[in-house]
Amino acid sequence: MHQTFDAVLEMNLLQANQDGADANRDRFNRWGITCLNLMSSPGSGKTQLLEETLRSLQSELRMAVIEGDMTTQLDANRLRECGVPVIAINTGRACHLDSKMVAGGLHQLEHELEQENGQPSDFDLVFVENVGNLVCPAEFEVGEHAKVALLSITEGEDKPLKYPIMFREADCLLITKMDLAPYLDVSIETIIANVRQLNTHAKIIPVSSKTYEGLDDWYAWVRHQVNLRRRS
Amino acid sequence: MHQTFDAVLEMNLLQANQDGADANRDRFNRWGITCLNLMSSPGSGKTQLLEETLRSLQSELRMAVIEGDMTTQLDANRLRECGVPVIAINTGRACHLDSKMVAGGLHQLEHELEQENGQPSDFDLVFVENVGNLVCPAEFEVGEHAKVALLSITEGEDKPLKYPIMFREADCLLITKMDLAPYLDVSIETIIANVRQLNTHAKIIPVSSKTYEGLDDWYAWVRHQVNLRRRS
Repeated sequence: MHQTFDAVLEMNLLQANQDGADANRDRFNRWGITCLNLMSSPGSGKTQLLEETLRSLQSELRMAVIEGDMTTQLDANRLRECGVPVIAINTGRACHLDSKMVAGGLHQLEHELEQENGQPSDFDLVFVENVGNLVCPAEFEVGEHAKVALLSITEGEDKPLKYPIMFREADCLLITKMDLAPYLDVSIETIIANVRQLNTHAKIIPVSSKTYEGLDDWYAWVRHQVNLRRRS
Repeated sequence: MHQTFDAVLEMNLLQANQDGADANRDRFNRWGITCLNLMSSPGSGKTQLLEETLRSLQSELRMAVIEGDMTTQLDANRLRECGVPVIAINTGRACHLDSKMVAGGLHQLEHELEQENGQPSDFDLVFVENVGNLVCPAEFEVGEHAKVALLSITEGEDKPLKYPIMFREADCLLITKMDLAPYLDVSIETIIANVRQLNTHAKIIPVSSKTYEGLDDWYAWVRHQVNLRRRS
């Protein structure tokens, strides 16, 4: 968030974004689709986690991705390899996705899904992969049902305290790259204790997309989220 | 940068910041002090690099730090242990330092330096440690003479292409945590080639604050920057 501009303008901006997010969420609800918003610093492993997740769950869930990047389709192309619809949004100079951008993505997605099977309600789950940024994405809802934050263990123990908004808002926190833990002076217990100072409810799962540590727990959490909203 | 607000307003905001940055730089120039702006993702090792640098160069250079963090004085306190003046700026919800915040820090610093020795011109170097964010800090000059970007090798090869503004703007790029390279499927050559697509002039130095790899080259670059502006 840029502090230098007027507080009233900032409030209007956040309110307009929230209204758009609510509209997106209504749309997901009508379709019976769960939306999860993945957020983290650059290079914490969001895309690799999504690759593993899409491959592992595609026999049981119909999934799509809305992929946010400042520039390039690098991540979008990686995820398309997993055989799911991927809508790429380039944010240009913007440091996060906002609800208007995701509404545009949703419009494209609806079109793509309809072409496939007549109605988007056959889909279970849309992942939004946000721009890599531990600050602003936490303040701009996009219509998600739950927020997933990733923190690479290489980033150190103090990050929850230094970037509190993200860790306060998260419904699920994945501590990633656990395979590197033996080579670091970082205590997983201290990370978790720091998160708990801000957030008592978030599900916390240490994971590695390389060794697959923790991924079954993550998949169970994802399934639970989908089941909460799936049309009976 | 938040794309949703008006383009004219955004231009005004960036222009006002630039004016403030120029004023800060004039002040540094009057004092004969070099200012380096350190920027990176959260957890790329800015503070640890500064700890090593302050300890290694304090016998030859008089240094101070302006330390930006959303909340907490955790990093400021770590750097105070190195025995240099540290001005802590908490940005609140803001995702980067701007020139106005740094002007405030400069005012405090001037006061602190004057109390020490009568005139701030005895100082050689001020490091600004920016908020951990690979996007917005690159667009908001604070009055620095040169921009130093850090990229942890754990963040992967594609980051220069995905976050181009930072890597285009950098005068020096430190590829950090090189001690972890043996445990990663990341090619340093690919990172450098990706940077060179955007930026042909930046000095690129792979470093590790753990094994001290590359730190002598970094110190040489810092010394050169100081010598460019030191009062004869």
